[in-house]
Amino acid sequence: MPKQTLKSTIENLPYFEEENSAEVVNSRMGVDVSPRLRDVMTVLVKHLHAAIKEIEPTHNEWLAAIKFLTETGKMCSDWRQEYILLSDVLGVSMLVDAINHRRPSGATPNTILGPFYVENAPRYENGANICLDGKGQSMVISGRVLDVSGNPIANATLDVWQTNDDGFYDVQQKDLQPDHNLRGVFSTSDSGSYWFKSVKPRHYPIPDDGPVGKLLRCLGRHPNRAAHLHFIVAAPGFEPVITHIFAPDCPYLAEDTVFGVKRDLVAEFIEVTDEDAARELGVTAPFWKVKWDFTLAHKKPDNAVKT
Amino acid sequence: MPKQTLKSTIENLPYFEEENSAEVVNSRMGVDVSPRLRDVMTVLVKHLHAAIKEIEPTHNEWLAAIKFLTETGKMCSDWRQEYILLSDVLGVSMLVDAINHRRPSGATPNTILGPFYVENAPRYENGANICLDGKGQSMVISGRVLDVSGNPIANATLDVWQTNDDGFYDVQQKDLQPDHNLRGVFSTSDSGSYWFKSVKPRHYPIPDDGPVGKLLRCLGRHPNRAAHLHFIVAAPGFEPVITHIFAPDCPYLAEDTVFGVKRDLVAEFIEVTDEDAARELGVTAPFWKVKWDFTLAHKKPDNAVKT
Repeated sequence: MPKQTLKSTIENLPYFEEENSAEVVNSRMGVDVSPRLRDVMTVLVKHLHAAIKEIEPTHNEWLAAIKFLTETGKMCSDWRQEYILLSDVLGVSMLVDAINHRRPSGATPNTILGPFYVENAPRYENGANICLDGKGQSMVISGRVLDVSGNPIANATLDVWQTNDDGFYDVQQKDLQPDHNLRGVFSTSDSGSYWFKSVKPRHYPIPDDGPVGKLLRCLGRHPNRAAHLHFIVAAPGFEPVITHIFAPDCPYLAEDTVFGVKRDLVAEFIEVTDEDAARELGVTAPFWKVKWDFTLAHKKPDNAVKT
Repeated sequence: MPKQTLKSTIENLPYFEEENSAEVVNSRMGVDVSPRLRDVMTVLVKHLHAAIKEIEPTHNEWLAAIKFLTETGKMCSDWRQEYILLSDVLGVSMLVDAINHRRPSGATPNTILGPFYVENAPRYENGANICLDGKGQSMVISGRVLDVSGNPIANATLDVWQTNDDGFYDVQQKDLQPDHNLRGVFSTSDSGSYWFKSVKPRHYPIPDDGPVGKLLRCLGRHPNRAAHLHFIVAAPGFEPVITHIFAPDCPYLAEDTVFGVKRDLVAEFIEVTDEDAARELGVTAPFWKVKWDFTLAHKKPDNAVKT
């Protein structure tokens, strides 16, 4: 390069400064980058740099962040995903879920799947009891699966899973709980109705012996999820819904550590002390009665489906 | 809890919605959280949620991000810090450095230390040659250390390190390079001057066989750092400076992958073909001549020092 050209080049380079930092970083992307990746990175770098400019981290704070991110990665294994936990406790998982499941008014809201779902749970007839270890307070849950106009959906499937009365899923206590304890798949009748027996779910902590648990403690937060049942409800021609039912009297209802509680998913749990009613349903008094209807949205046309 | 109170509580909970997501997450922090951590998390969560709302990631994109963060953590070891690399290539390291080293006008700008600094390099007299493997084009570098008013600083120390002509630091090639190749500590004379011999530095790639290298390729970016020498210059009563000198004719000057190049750190490298001049300096022609002054800022009073 001739000397003068070199000098003028040096004078006019887009040097990285505090003021233009995000723009300089983003300007480095090549011309062949996928348009979606370009958009995603542009937004990420913009907000990352804006956050740093607001925070003005010291060198040691920056290093503490590097160490936290490193340890969170190192905590991950085949049976533990610490970055998903981090996403959960920062509200990111629920936010991504909300963005991807904007449903028509009246449809049952979606929630996150969580790490404890197991495929191919036992199929049961309506009225079966999914509690196989006899622990906890009996619960009878019944209702219907409907479309958004209120028409019953026959032959919809309901895949349900929940913790036992100690606050653990069967897969967390392979030695202590029967296989498939508190899991089952039900189908609705011709009138769209279902019912089954179980036990009242309990709150439980997310795994908090890693970097995310440490972060929660530093933030003065507990690790508990509000008591709930999980459901996947599906029927041909409808959007399947991954959802929860929450118990209204759980002490952590207002502070579910992963932000999963929605107003429209808090059920009424009615305590029944009548022994005759209990006997008729094949449970012992007192027991909990829950009525819950699920409302499915019609499937969107294929060309509107987000991948 | 009485039934009516429970109902009213449920109606009035601060439910997590797309609209208020960051505020709900931040409102969960306990009362005893350190004020600094509260501020930092409030800003991080605000920008994280804002970025997600702009990006609207699909579930699979979110999962790809989780996997990338996990793999970046798993790549870290005692001799490899992939999260620092990520911070570097996103311009975060240089931004944090800039925020923490706002110097008075005229003082030599700070840059990042980088991973290849080694303490206790050999002390040399002025005029020594730090190139111990005889590779590369000879370079003679000289100049002074000054205060911001232009007064020379005697007995300032200059700790210098650089790659050899293959683009590697000695610590990266323990078997191929002599110990302490291209490293040394010099002191300024009574007139504040220093000089030493070396070889012209070469550009080199940051380690790009991990997730960060993969990200760079997806973004159409190369992994190269612009050719430079590293210096730490220090003197009693002055702020030490960690800095670089860049070669003006490096093909990657405009695109240093970690954004370390500053206008005020690009030196003039003059090629000298005169054999007499070479002989006088104890090098062979052609060689490169670099004149470079460092300007130190006076130490701030203790109560203004950021920790």
